[in-house]
Amino acid sequence: MRRSPRERMVFSAAQLIRRNGVAGTGMREVVAHADAPRGSLQHYFPGGKDQLVAEAAWWGGDYAAKRVDKFLAALPEPTPGALLAAMAGQWREDFLSDEYRAGCPVAASVVDCSAANPTVRQAASDAFAAWQDAVATALRGMHVPYRRARSLATLMIGALEGAILIARAERDPRALDVTVRELRPLLDAAVRNPPVPARPAGARVAPGRPRPAPSAARTRSGR
Amino acid sequence: MRRSPRERMVFSAAQLIRRNGVAGTGMREVVAHADAPRGSLQHYFPGGKDQLVAEAAWWGGDYAAKRVDKFLAALPEPTPGALLAAMAGQWREDFLSDEYRAGCPVAASVVDCSAANPTVRQAASDAFAAWQDAVATALRGMHVPYRRARSLATLMIGALEGAILIARAERDPRALDVTVRELRPLLDAAVRNPPVPARPAGARVAPGRPRPAPSAARTRSGR
Repeated sequence: MRRSPRERMVFSAAQLIRRNGVAGTGMREVVAHADAPRGSLQHYFPGGKDQLVAEAAWWGGDYAAKRVDKFLAALPEPTPGALLAAMAGQWREDFLSDEYRAGCPVAASVVDCSAANPTVRQAASDAFAAWQDAVATALRGMHVPYRRARSLATLMIGALEGAILIARAERDPRALDVTVRELRPLLDAAVRNPPVPARPAGARVAPGRPRPAPSAARTRSGR
Repeated sequence: MRRSPRERMVFSAAQLIRRNGVAGTGMREVVAHADAPRGSLQHYFPGGKDQLVAEAAWWGGDYAAKRVDKFLAALPEPTPGALLAAMAGQWREDFLSDEYRAGCPVAASVVDCSAANPTVRQAASDAFAAWQDAVATALRGMHVPYRRARSLATLMIGALEGAILIARAERDPRALDVTVRELRPLLDAAVRNPPVPARPAGARVAPGRPRPAPSAARTRSGR
C-alpha cells in the first residue's frame, strides 16, 4: 500500500532528522525526499516545521512500539532479556548497513528542541510513553509484576538510547552488545514464576511424579 | 581564576549546545555568551565552527570525567551503585534548577553531527572514552574486576544518557530515579571481595581461631 503524501512527509522528516538532527533538516529537503507536491507542506502542516517535527517524533515512538509487538511475535521463547536483545539487534543491523548514519528521531527532537519548543517536547514525551507502554505490556505478558514492568521498560529504553549514542560516536556496536549482556540477567530475574495452570480435580500431582501417600497429602493440605 | 577567552568560548559553546543543539547554536551567539572580543573566533579556532563544536564535545567528556573523581572523593562509602546515584543526582539537581533546559553536549554533538562531520564524531567518541575510563578506574578501585569495570562503565554512562533524554522529554526526574534504583543491585554485586591484607610471618591464622595441629598444617602445604 502506497503511503499518502502526508504520511510520506512525516516519514521523510523522521528519516532526515535521524541523520542530521532537527535544525539540520530543511523543509524543502523533506518535500523532495517525500516526493511530495510543492505547497503540500503548507496544506498538510499549517503549523509549519514545528508541527512536522512533532509528528516525526511521535512517528518514531509509534514505530518503535509496533516493532516491540513484531519482535515478540518472532521470539521462540519470549523473555525480557530476549526482547532487549531483539531491540538492540535491530539497531546493530541498521548501523552496520547504514554506517551509523541514522540515530533515533525521538532523541534528536529532545536534544534540538526540548529547551525551546514545548510542542516538540510534548510529542517526544508522548513518543517515549508509547514505546514504554509497549515494552511494559510485553514484560507483563512474560509475568513481570506490573510496577516492575514499568520500571524495567524505562531502563531498557533509556539504556538502549544511550547505547545508540555511544555506538554512533564510536562507530562500533560494542555499547549495544555490552548493554544486552549486562542487563540480560537482571531482566530475566524479574520474571515471577508463572501461576501454576489449574489442574482437574483429583490430579493434584504432576504426572510422572510419585504420588504421596494419602496421610502425607492430608498433613500438607492441613498446614 | 578567570578563564582565558579561548576557554570561555569552548565553555560557552558547550553550554549553548546543551540547550539548543549544534545547529541551533550560532557562532556570534558563542562570542557574545563568552564575552569574547570580536574576531577572536577566527583567531583561536581557525577550523571554524567544526573545531569549536569538536572542542565543546571534548570539554563535555573531560568535565564528566573530572566530576567522577569529585563524586568519589565525596562519597562516605564508595560503591558502584553510590557512584551512579551521585552522577544521576547531579543531573537531577541541574534539571530541577534549570527546568530541564540543558542536556549533555556530547549527546547533542552525536545527534547533530556524527553522520556528516567526522571531526566532531571523533571528538564525541574521545569524550565518551575519557568519561568511561574515569568510571572504569573508579570501579576498579572498588574491587570490580578489570573487564567487568569497563562493561559496567559503558552501561552506566549509556543508561544515564538515555535517562537524561527521557527526563528532558517528560520534564520529570523519574527516568533518572528508576535507572539508579534498577541498576544499583547489579552494580554493587559486581564488587569482588577485596583481597585479604598480608599478614606478618608466623601469624598465618587469624587471632581467635584455633591453630591447626602441625601435622595438619604440613599436610595442607604439601598438597
